[in-house]
Amino acid sequence: MQSCAKSWGILFTKSVNPHAPCRHINGKSRIFGKQQNRIQTLNACVTVRGLRTSAVYAASRQIDRILPRHDDFAERHIGPGERDKREMLNVLGLESIAQLIEDTVPESIRIQRSMKMDDPLCENEVLDHLQKIASKNKVWRSYIGMGYYNCSVPPVIQRNLLENSGWVTQYTPYQPEVAQGRLESLLNYQTMICDITGMAVANASLLDEATAAAEAMQLCHSYIGVKTMLKLPHEMDFSGKDVSGVLFQYPDTDGRVEDLTALVDRAHKGGALACCATDLLALCVLRPPGEFGVDIALGSSQRFGVPLCYGGPHAAFFSVKENLVRMMPGRMVGVTRDAAGKEVYRLALQTREQHIRRDKATSNICTAQALLANMAAMFGVYHGPQGLKHIAERTHNAALILAEGLKRAGHRLHSEMFFDTLKVGCSVAAKDILARAVQREINLRVYGEGVLGVSLDETVKERDLDDLLWVFGCESSAELIAEKMGERVKGIMGSPFKRTSKYLTHAVFNSYHSETNIVRYMKRLENKDISLVHSMIPLPITWNEFANLHPFCPLDQAEGYQLLFRQLEKDLCEVTGYDKISFQPNSGAQGEYAGLAAIKAYLNSKGDAHRTVCLIPKSAHGTNPASAQMAGMKVQVVEVDKDGNIDMANLKDLVDKHKANLAAMMITYPSTFGVFEESIDDVCNLIHQNGGQVYLDGANMNAQMMGAKGLVHATEVAILNANYMAKRLESHYKILFKGFCAHEFILDVRPFKKTANIEAVDVAKRLQDYGTLMIEPTESEDKAEMDRFCDALMGIRQEIADIEEGRMDARVNPLKMAPHSLASITSSTWDRPYSREYAAFPLPFVRPETKFWPSISRIDDIYGDQHLVCTCPPMDVYESPYEEKRASS
Amino acid sequence: MQSCAKSWGILFTKSVNPHAPCRHINGKSRIFGKQQNRIQTLNACVTVRGLRTSAVYAASRQIDRILPRHDDFAERHIGPGERDKREMLNVLGLESIAQLIEDTVPESIRIQRSMKMDDPLCENEVLDHLQKIASKNKVWRSYIGMGYYNCSVPPVIQRNLLENSGWVTQYTPYQPEVAQGRLESLLNYQTMICDITGMAVANASLLDEATAAAEAMQLCHSYIGVKTMLKLPHEMDFSGKDVSGVLFQYPDTDGRVEDLTALVDRAHKGGALACCATDLLALCVLRPPGEFGVDIALGSSQRFGVPLCYGGPHAAFFSVKENLVRMMPGRMVGVTRDAAGKEVYRLALQTREQHIRRDKATSNICTAQALLANMAAMFGVYHGPQGLKHIAERTHNAALILAEGLKRAGHRLHSEMFFDTLKVGCSVAAKDILARAVQREINLRVYGEGVLGVSLDETVKERDLDDLLWVFGCESSAELIAEKMGERVKGIMGSPFKRTSKYLTHAVFNSYHSETNIVRYMKRLENKDISLVHSMIPLPITWNEFANLHPFCPLDQAEGYQLLFRQLEKDLCEVTGYDKISFQPNSGAQGEYAGLAAIKAYLNSKGDAHRTVCLIPKSAHGTNPASAQMAGMKVQVVEVDKDGNIDMANLKDLVDKHKANLAAMMITYPSTFGVFEESIDDVCNLIHQNGGQVYLDGANMNAQMMGAKGLVHATEVAILNANYMAKRLESHYKILFKGFCAHEFILDVRPFKKTANIEAVDVAKRLQDYGTLMIEPTESEDKAEMDRFCDALMGIRQEIADIEEGRMDARVNPLKMAPHSLASITSSTWDRPYSREYAAFPLPFVRPETKFWPSISRIDDIYGDQHLVCTCPPMDVYESPYEEKRASS
Repeated sequence: MQSCAKSWGILFTKSVNPHAPCRHINGKSRIFGKQQNRIQTLNACVTVRGLRTSAVYAASRQIDRILPRHDDFAERHIGPGERDKREMLNVLGLESIAQLIEDTVPESIRIQRSMKMDDPLCENEVLDHLQKIASKNKVWRSYIGMGYYNCSVPPVIQRNLLENSGWVTQYTPYQPEVAQGRLESLLNYQTMICDITGMAVANASLLDEATAAAEAMQLCHSYIGVKTMLKLPHEMDFSGKDVSGVLFQYPDTDGRVEDLTALVDRAHKGGALACCATDLLALCVLRPPGEFGVDIALGSSQRFGVPLCYGGPHAAFFSVKENLVRMMPGRMVGVTRDAAGKEVYRLALQTREQHIRRDKATSNICTAQALLANMAAMFGVYHGPQGLKHIAERTHNAALILAEGLKRAGHRLHSEMFFDTLKVGCSVAAKDILARAVQREINLRVYGEGVLGVSLDETVKERDLDDLLWVFGCESSAELIAEKMGERVKGIMGSPFKRTSKYLTHAVFNSYHSETNIVRYMKRLENKDISLVHSMIPLPITWNEFANLHPFCPLDQAEGYQLLFRQLEKDLCEVTGYDKISFQPNSGAQGEYAGLAAIKAYLNSKGDAHRTVCLIPKSAHGTNPASAQMAGMKVQVVEVDKDGNIDMANLKDLVDKHKANLAAMMITYPSTFGVFEESIDDVCNLIHQNGGQVYLDGANMNAQMMGAKGLVHATEVAILNANYMAKRLESHYKILFKGFCAHEFILDVRPFKKTANIEAVDVAKRLQDYGTLMIEPTESEDKAEMDRFCDALMGIRQEIADIEEGRMDARVNPLKMAPHSLASITSSTWDRPYSREYAAFPLPFVRPETKFWPSISRIDDIYGDQHLVCTCPPMDVYESPYEEKRASS
Repeated sequence: MQSCAKSWGILFTKSVNPHAPCRHINGKSRIFGKQQNRIQTLNACVTVRGLRTSAVYAASRQIDRILPRHDDFAERHIGPGERDKREMLNVLGLESIAQLIEDTVPESIRIQRSMKMDDPLCENEVLDHLQKIASKNKVWRSYIGMGYYNCSVPPVIQRNLLENSGWVTQYTPYQPEVAQGRLESLLNYQTMICDITGMAVANASLLDEATAAAEAMQLCHSYIGVKTMLKLPHEMDFSGKDVSGVLFQYPDTDGRVEDLTALVDRAHKGGALACCATDLLALCVLRPPGEFGVDIALGSSQRFGVPLCYGGPHAAFFSVKENLVRMMPGRMVGVTRDAAGKEVYRLALQTREQHIRRDKATSNICTAQALLANMAAMFGVYHGPQGLKHIAERTHNAALILAEGLKRAGHRLHSEMFFDTLKVGCSVAAKDILARAVQREINLRVYGEGVLGVSLDETVKERDLDDLLWVFGCESSAELIAEKMGERVKGIMGSPFKRTSKYLTHAVFNSYHSETNIVRYMKRLENKDISLVHSMIPLPITWNEFANLHPFCPLDQAEGYQLLFRQLEKDLCEVTGYDKISFQPNSGAQGEYAGLAAIKAYLNSKGDAHRTVCLIPKSAHGTNPASAQMAGMKVQVVEVDKDGNIDMANLKDLVDKHKANLAAMMITYPSTFGVFEESIDDVCNLIHQNGGQVYLDGANMNAQMMGAKGLVHATEVAILNANYMAKRLESHYKILFKGFCAHEFILDVRPFKKTANIEAVDVAKRLQDYGTLMIEPTESEDKAEMDRFCDALMGIRQEIADIEEGRMDARVNPLKMAPHSLASITSSTWDRPYSREYAAFPLPFVRPETKFWPSISRIDDIYGDQHLVCTCPPMDVYESPYEEKRASS
């Protein structure tokens, strides 16, 4: 699960024009790259544009010499300075970076030309530029609905969470001992979803509502190639027992609230599962799906305090009945215990995930919208059950007032039972209503044929209702209508749909309603987590003109966004050599799926429907096989040689064997083993000659992006960093795939299992004690940081040697007992055969005043999966900060 | 020294119209209130407007019942909920808050009417409102200079320091053990100022350049009533030995750089000191004042990365020769050692300050612009000496190109030696030039009589130069002029004024030039400091329309600011009952001085120049007597009774004795002892009847602000909180001034000196171990936080009892050894007669995973003042994070 570092899929395709200039790298292959998520789409654009140095033209004009660009984004971003670089090259025995690149990147795949991109900008210029772009967006009041609603983002959460690099840039919480803060917040999210939907378990979010819906259908069918049919509830027939599931919306897209209990019962009797797409705010006053038998409830948690941002990123929620928990897609936080017996949190049921199960996985989803899920969770924590109910009632009352006014003006409502959304049959020409809406800068949903939609939300004020009434030609005002309605109309609150069950009763949702308290709570969680604390430039996503745009607003209100997309597309085409890009896929895994689906459709269209074999090298990302099988392909694994390259002999055999049915080959480039495949051209030719298509996974593409000076420099430094570290470590550890590496390399710790009973996990946990988790030495780390990391690994190697040679106990040693929490180090009781200092401050750079402490001892994964708890544990296991007992000392 | 909590003086005066409606509280007295600084001027306005609840009109309309305002700023801001409040009232034996207020606030001073203020707004509405106000400001390019320059605020510093509540809301670093981060940054600031100005010592900043200049003259004269004369250097005559000092500018306001060595020599020979107002960026390429004998160098550090913000707040710098250090005004950070012998930082030479020396103090300055000084320091750390020199040369080169172009166009320069500022005698009508400037949205300095000024800065780009050339009617372009100039013109760099000495050679200015490194450095410092981590709403000061306005831009470009000022003035007049307000004074102490100076001028104008006696109660703030003596008054101290009220008998005696010469009385209301003086009306009448004026210090006025519902509620809760805590503690400690208190109270720990050799400082340091520093229970703290604080104080009282009764050693006990740093607790060596847990986790709510640790042991103040070091110590005392030696274990 990644927060902001999650991937945003970008689909590259060749232009349909066969005469387009040939600017591609790999022949006719399709490339599916991974890029940043939508928060970072803006950022990515900035980075791409900003990374270039001014060196390109620096020397050409006198004025550039005496009036140079005064700051250089690339130099600020790249960690090692000139001295660092010289020292590292010395260690590698190289003269220059050019020599290193020659030895690392096969000449056949290097491009020589320089890229066509706009002039480089410094950071403040980027912000000015973005401000101009932002001003091209027009922020009207949008009452379009369709899954996206205006909301009041609590400034206290925006500022201390969304705009706080301590939350935004956190590492993936694979090391739960240093990620208890986010894990607790995500557990709050899961608890909130379970409570509000009335379901038993929820995951830590999915990419978006559409993905959640697709995953629900997938789960129902447990099988690929599901056929979907659109029907009205009363038309649905389960009697043939051939239906795997039904997906309905409650309230539906037109705003209607209806009783779906009978449908659920019929589905169950027919052996099908019932999936309900629903709305969290509505469920605060509405009977939840868990109370009428639904098996899977899903939806978007956007309206819980996350800005519209023209459609995303938002966190989807996904919750299921108890019996489906082990089939649930996505990441899930669970409770377990640590070595000291304390209740703690970690990612649960990881063994079902694709990086372990590969093509046996039930889903290719490997990401969550953790940051946005955390925002939504904090929205729940901040408002609590009373606050949420208050917001829901208020929103509903606004809809009731509007409905009354519309009826008085002669319009017809399609449903009398609604939460916040009205579908209106207009009594006058819809175009006149829309013209008045434009006058007041209001967007409505347009159904056509005299039918309009209005979706209200928590931001609606009396003045907005008055404007809407005027737009619809109602002569009365919200105040007068409310006065006349009196207590008469209660809507949901006076109907059998009214929710009677409690929710969010846990203390965490009832303790932090004041600003002071919620800030302290967020800060307490933040401080438990190790973080990059590295924010590049202020994220412009919270700017009004980016944040408050509805995804279905008219295009002429979103010119700023369109401009951003066009610029990003242009730059990415230039970098990759492709002609068109789709920004549709919401993650790398989605990109894989979309790409393979496109290949499959292309083959089918040519009459090659029998082509279903997908070749995937062993070195590929775990999502690859999962995506291939989801796209209806059969996976065949290609061997790699000892250097991490594709085993060409094996590949040729496999192609030969499957050539009649060959659909595609998937390649990660450079590979997960950090290798640039020199044979990439040969591979592509071989596949193409045999009727297949090549899919290229760009997950590691930042080490490929070889063009404009700044990008080149960043890439060179990343390669230099990796090779420097490999060199420093090679006499201490066995390094897989020797020779110069690309951007990463692999240390082989398997031998220590035999010699010292030490496994990879022990090394990883012990690294926490050294206060450094870095494993991918990107260009932004400087030499000092890399030296610390190497020193830590060399220190650990020495500790292993101490065990191997009997100087340290084989069971109770700092590796097996790692990580060491502050509680264990400060305890009066200390009965280890090594000192407190040895445990906690193993090298001089690990100091009491700056050390980052794991907040718990080593996690017990097996216990947690055996005793699965995925909601907040009852309060008595919390060590409450409100206890008042005097400690016995 | 306060960062954002520093005071911004507001001068209230009665309208000159004698028929104005009588809306005041205290007769004809002048009130000088303390309010927030300019960063918070915006905020204060927001708070005042937002604090009101909707309860005022909630019940009057049906629509307000069913469509209520959905969030309530006051409720979010106020810590205790309804249950908390009930429980606290129970402890106090009271039925209601109304009853408490009746018992606390004398009826004679309560007002009954409700205040006239705009309708309350919720937070998001406030931001919308501010955005509308901001849009009324026009951001033109300003080349006006006069001490204010555009600069590139590094986004990485803006985001992680200026917009980070961890830096903005820090407590005053009176407890250095939990403030080492800011102290280190301020020491960097002092080091930077010393290096760049070439002086021996600098303070940690002053309020603004004008204050710094006044303080310099004050220091020269060491006496009040200094007469100032404006003369050109060659006109100055020191031969009469009656001149105390000379203040000149280098480069001067017209941009001229001239050799002032002879003037300095003449001043010294005449027994006068030489003060130089100067420019940090210019000094990066210019011979610094310290190298030609200047005694005091001062100026603004705004252009080191602090936004213009229409004139402030910015940090002024103030540096002196070694021999003047003990006369230097303001706060100064110095190096000392802690109980463990480590080199550490703290505020130095505090004994010379006004809260101790009162009317013997040399200055009434008690604040610094710490936050802005820290921004400037980080600007220096981020750019380093090469970066700053690069920026300075670039700015200078831009001025050289412009100068060349202007000369070609026939204009005349007033000086040939300049850094960034040109004074131009125009060859064509200035109004034509100004008209073209308006076309390009450019502001110039207008001298009149055909003379214009242009001040360039680091943000100037080629395009800006082209625009300026066009404005001045030069037909060439910056590119062509630069091309023709070639290497010929070097300006300062080819003159004797060129700086040859090095600066910023310390490692701290040479290590953090990459984004990753500076973020980590700022975060490391931030994490050493305890903080409120409590940000109300995003500060709008960083919005372009607020940040980038030059203070001398035409008024019609600053309509947004003007609107803010008018609104704030209106609300503050309503709250205080006064008719006019001056926002001029830049701090509370400045307000005092301005108020007393106004009173003195008023009395003089009436022919009462002999009235010089100022009465000040013992309970007054320490700045009061210092300000009075600076305003040329003689201080007479009025006794207070055992309840903290003014001793009326003593007051009457004093008034009687001094009535012929009575000028004023100063009152702090409510007093620093937390008492509402019931006799306030009598006091005012007595003074007025005897020809004096009353000055009211509003430093504690937030407990007075009795009007609109929200303000009333906040005030009530603050009073409730204080009384609840006093009640819980009264059986454990002696509480001074019993009865119900206003917003604060005083615990008397003096008896413990005799019984256990424990002093107030021991209690304060031990509170750090308990992780709570709160001492003023404002309305934003909830009951749980207050209970924790009371529990801590009760725990400490028990520890004192243990000493008193011989259960704990009188020398080595947790109070005397407090605070306990992490280094001491985690050490293998532990030879104390109490446990590690007793030291570090004295109560259950102090936990390893959440405890805030003092980063050092107890500070040694005396050692530091005896061995005064006020710049960064040499690197070998730093424990470098780059060491690579393996720890011996």
